[in-house]
Amino acid sequence: MDAAAAIKMLSPPSHQIHRTHSLISSPCSSCFSSEIRFHSSLLSFTNLDIRSISICRRTIDINSSGAISSVAMARMESSFKPEEARIPAAIPLSIPPITKFKIALCQLSVTADKELNIAHARQVIEEAAGKGAQLILLPEIWNSPYSNDSFPVYAEDIDAGGNASPSTTMLSQLSLTLQITIVGGSIPDRSGDRLYNACCVFGTDGKLKAKHRKIHLFDIDIPGQMTFKESKTLTAGETPTIVDTDVGRIGIGICYDIRFQELAAIYAARGAHLLCYPGAFNMTTGPLHWELLQRARAADCQLYVATCSPARDTGSTYVAWGHSTLVGPFGEVLATTEHDEAIVISEIDYSIIEQRRTYLPFQRQRRGDLYQLVDIQRLNSTRTT
Amino acid sequence: MDAAAAIKMLSPPSHQIHRTHSLISSPCSSCFSSEIRFHSSLLSFTNLDIRSISICRRTIDINSSGAISSVAMARMESSFKPEEARIPAAIPLSIPPITKFKIALCQLSVTADKELNIAHARQVIEEAAGKGAQLILLPEIWNSPYSNDSFPVYAEDIDAGGNASPSTTMLSQLSLTLQITIVGGSIPDRSGDRLYNACCVFGTDGKLKAKHRKIHLFDIDIPGQMTFKESKTLTAGETPTIVDTDVGRIGIGICYDIRFQELAAIYAARGAHLLCYPGAFNMTTGPLHWELLQRARAADCQLYVATCSPARDTGSTYVAWGHSTLVGPFGEVLATTEHDEAIVISEIDYSIIEQRRTYLPFQRQRRGDLYQLVDIQRLNSTRTT
Repeated sequence: MDAAAAIKMLSPPSHQIHRTHSLISSPCSSCFSSEIRFHSSLLSFTNLDIRSISICRRTIDINSSGAISSVAMARMESSFKPEEARIPAAIPLSIPPITKFKIALCQLSVTADKELNIAHARQVIEEAAGKGAQLILLPEIWNSPYSNDSFPVYAEDIDAGGNASPSTTMLSQLSLTLQITIVGGSIPDRSGDRLYNACCVFGTDGKLKAKHRKIHLFDIDIPGQMTFKESKTLTAGETPTIVDTDVGRIGIGICYDIRFQELAAIYAARGAHLLCYPGAFNMTTGPLHWELLQRARAADCQLYVATCSPARDTGSTYVAWGHSTLVGPFGEVLATTEHDEAIVISEIDYSIIEQRRTYLPFQRQRRGDLYQLVDIQRLNSTRTT
Repeated sequence: MDAAAAIKMLSPPSHQIHRTHSLISSPCSSCFSSEIRFHSSLLSFTNLDIRSISICRRTIDINSSGAISSVAMARMESSFKPEEARIPAAIPLSIPPITKFKIALCQLSVTADKELNIAHARQVIEEAAGKGAQLILLPEIWNSPYSNDSFPVYAEDIDAGGNASPSTTMLSQLSLTLQITIVGGSIPDRSGDRLYNACCVFGTDGKLKAKHRKIHLFDIDIPGQMTFKESKTLTAGETPTIVDTDVGRIGIGICYDIRFQELAAIYAARGAHLLCYPGAFNMTTGPLHWELLQRARAADCQLYVATCSPARDTGSTYVAWGHSTLVGPFGEVLATTEHDEAIVISEIDYSIIEQRRTYLPFQRQRRGDLYQLVDIQRLNSTRTT
């Protein structure tokens, strides 16, 4: 089928197609979107220079000869519009650079001595790499006590790097020398007069591949049990963070971010193989929700979820729950630990993801005619490109 | 603040307001929606006959004197647009007709004898009501074996009622005579040449208040363990089902529906107090996911979740997992059972919902600037009214 025929077939009778230089759009009365769009760098029916069609918010790829791929055709069969349950449509899972590898969750003890924390993290990362881990995950706020009083004192200017950020400089050096990927937990990140709770991802070339700033700040108040307001000192991040590494496509969340299923779902729709959540749940929320949320995100999104907590220090003002865990794409706990300092090493096998998704084919069963999850930044980026 | 001032304040500079007879709309460059709308039966600035404003897809109520309520104002404060994480905006939790009451989960044994199944269900419901239950939940497919061969044979014409549907006629009679609300599990529902898996809700007046047809059909294939294709015989329902009863606002899902977090989330946004899922997970999916999914839906949506399975019959072709369960709004299991026939009676206290939502205020913390879950039918209904 060529693109012109496809456009005709794809267009409900109610669509009246208007053509402009680079965009064809018209009102659509058959879907809740108010328009259909035909994107192309240069739109032309005569030479079929159309790269994709977005109709009723569904994007369909067209190959160089103007034909719609069979995958795209199959997606169009269901009146339930499963591909429209994610806006933009979910990106198919890419083939990762590596299928099987070892991950290490370094459940570090954290002290009030920053230099000691950095030296200790270095030693534990070296030990984990020595055991064969190709991906290392550190805890939330591993260079500082977890408190609003400490965040400004221990914060580093990550963007300046070098001496301005000894914690991430160490991570950068180790990732290069040990040839590992590091999802560096989080540290307080100073930017001008603002502080963030930030996770840095370093590739095997030692370069900072991504920095996630905690999107959902931890502001809760369970009277008599747990009250904390990160927003007293911290500013929330402005963007989801997903990054291609030598060990697959990784979506990053920090602690409280895991409570928002929408974030995990948009990472899954962006093709994540693994979600990493450095996190420091506490003695109230830990037993209630720590494992539940990891398993739920993994089972609902059908991907791997790894978490890493600081070890428990009952003498600190904020007592972490511990229990760093790796969960597989059926929501099954693959490896975990108690609350003491530990290195949890376990194998990830990405081939399991496709298998699980074949067994339970949610991607083809969602009801895009009834609900749609919109990834706003990805939607905007597809509109402007 | 009067409505005219509110409109001015609410309108980003990029909005150019145009007025028509009953609608003001214009392009909006500050949000992903392409327009803002001011809904009113008759729009007028001079007499302030404006009932609500929908701007950037957020609806704000205006009272009769033209003032915006303080609740609405508070919602507008955050640049993260938490209220836009649900489209349309979430409906505030209503005060239920009753705060505390007993629910009974009737984990029935199901046989191949339909008359016996109906008589047995009647006796168990009477027993549960005798123990003080004001809400009774039955299992998925309780009048028939769970198999594609059986569905057409045991199906009833629920809409015709009377002798055409002895199962629901019994439920209707009991709900009236016992003055209870019944969420009647599910039975095969014949409508013309189509079959559905349908759950009927009866009020204390004996009337059918709602009928939910399973939206997500159970089509899975885990080789060597569990293969089932409901779509061989059944047609999927076309609409989410939420119903106001004497025991609160209840969202209904049937079994596989629980796997789709979006359905639970749109029920929560429609103001549900309780989600009821009749379900028959099996010996593969039961241990993997039955409790996990119930707890995750309850914890993420911060409401009650009740499930009811048939009792296990190891002699049947489809062996149910059992484990009917009530989960509270922190995701905590309040009452459950093993796999034998049982009546699980437990207390629901809706006042806990608001408390949990105050402790962990997700409603105010979601990032509507980053993700939005669209309830398409509710969105369309607000557009046409």
